[in-house]
Amino acid sequence: MLNNPIQDRYDPFVSACYGCGNDNTFGHKIKTNWTGSQGITRFIPKPFHTAIPGFVYGGLIASLFDCHSTGTASAYVTQLLNPHDPTITAVRFVTASLKVDYLKPTPLGPELVLSGEIKAHVDRKVTVMSTMIVNGIVTAKAEVIVVEMPESFLKNG
Amino acid sequence: MLNNPIQDRYDPFVSACYGCGNDNTFGHKIKTNWTGSQGITRFIPKPFHTAIPGFVYGGLIASLFDCHSTGTASAYVTQLLNPHDPTITAVRFVTASLKVDYLKPTPLGPELVLSGEIKAHVDRKVTVMSTMIVNGIVTAKAEVIVVEMPESFLKNG
Repeated sequence: MLNNPIQDRYDPFVSACYGCGNDNTFGHKIKTNWTGSQGITRFIPKPFHTAIPGFVYGGLIASLFDCHSTGTASAYVTQLLNPHDPTITAVRFVTASLKVDYLKPTPLGPELVLSGEIKAHVDRKVTVMSTMIVNGIVTAKAEVIVVEMPESFLKNG
Repeated sequence: MLNNPIQDRYDPFVSACYGCGNDNTFGHKIKTNWTGSQGITRFIPKPFHTAIPGFVYGGLIASLFDCHSTGTASAYVTQLLNPHDPTITAVRFVTASLKVDYLKPTPLGPELVLSGEIKAHVDRKVTVMSTMIVNGIVTAKAEVIVVEMPESFLKNG
């Protein structure tokens, strides 16, 4: 399913996310694929996504972990519920907490590769543990808790 | 000093940050003022800074806490070192870890007000505890550890 990013299967009503929505003209359009055991997100920052010269802005890194984690949980739960239909509309998750450790400065230029695994899945809550690798080096790690989107959110559009 | 944001006193070489740099055409231009006891950041998201319709994107909230925290630490340490000169070039901090708890959905539209206090200051490391308030309601909290920028970062521009 590496050419079937989960964000392409979000319902259009919840696909305007600035981070990963297909329907946000100005957004980052982050894409996450499920390998069968991991969520993988690949992203090449723009030159202006800088912090200190030469390094990627930490807020963008947090944004990548955010959408990568909701996407990983979504892909995991959607395939659990519908193992034989890779086209079905995805279950949508939102973030409850986000913890990023910036281990090294992340060089600006190369592709960033985030991989995430499911640490826990209890009821509507999923914990995703991820790393970000650049040129073979882990530069950041994250633990993100996401929850299945409450129905009430649909009333605020 | 409420009209003297610390980001306006970053050295031009380290003021290209996508989050808070004055010299990043495409960035958010987040501004943080020091009240004497707190760092305060005010920001009005754009309509496209959405996640689920009607709510602010969590990655933007993380970005705000990121630059607000480096800014708060910078303002605090800079005034400690130079209590009588509110124009001096600021000490620049970078983020070591970022923990955001999303307590409630943050409505998109009103001004977001972040306030941060110094929880710890040991050598080059500062811990900043912050809240984000919208329409009088706390919607998110963060604990961010920042460190004074290593000299080595200046060699990578």
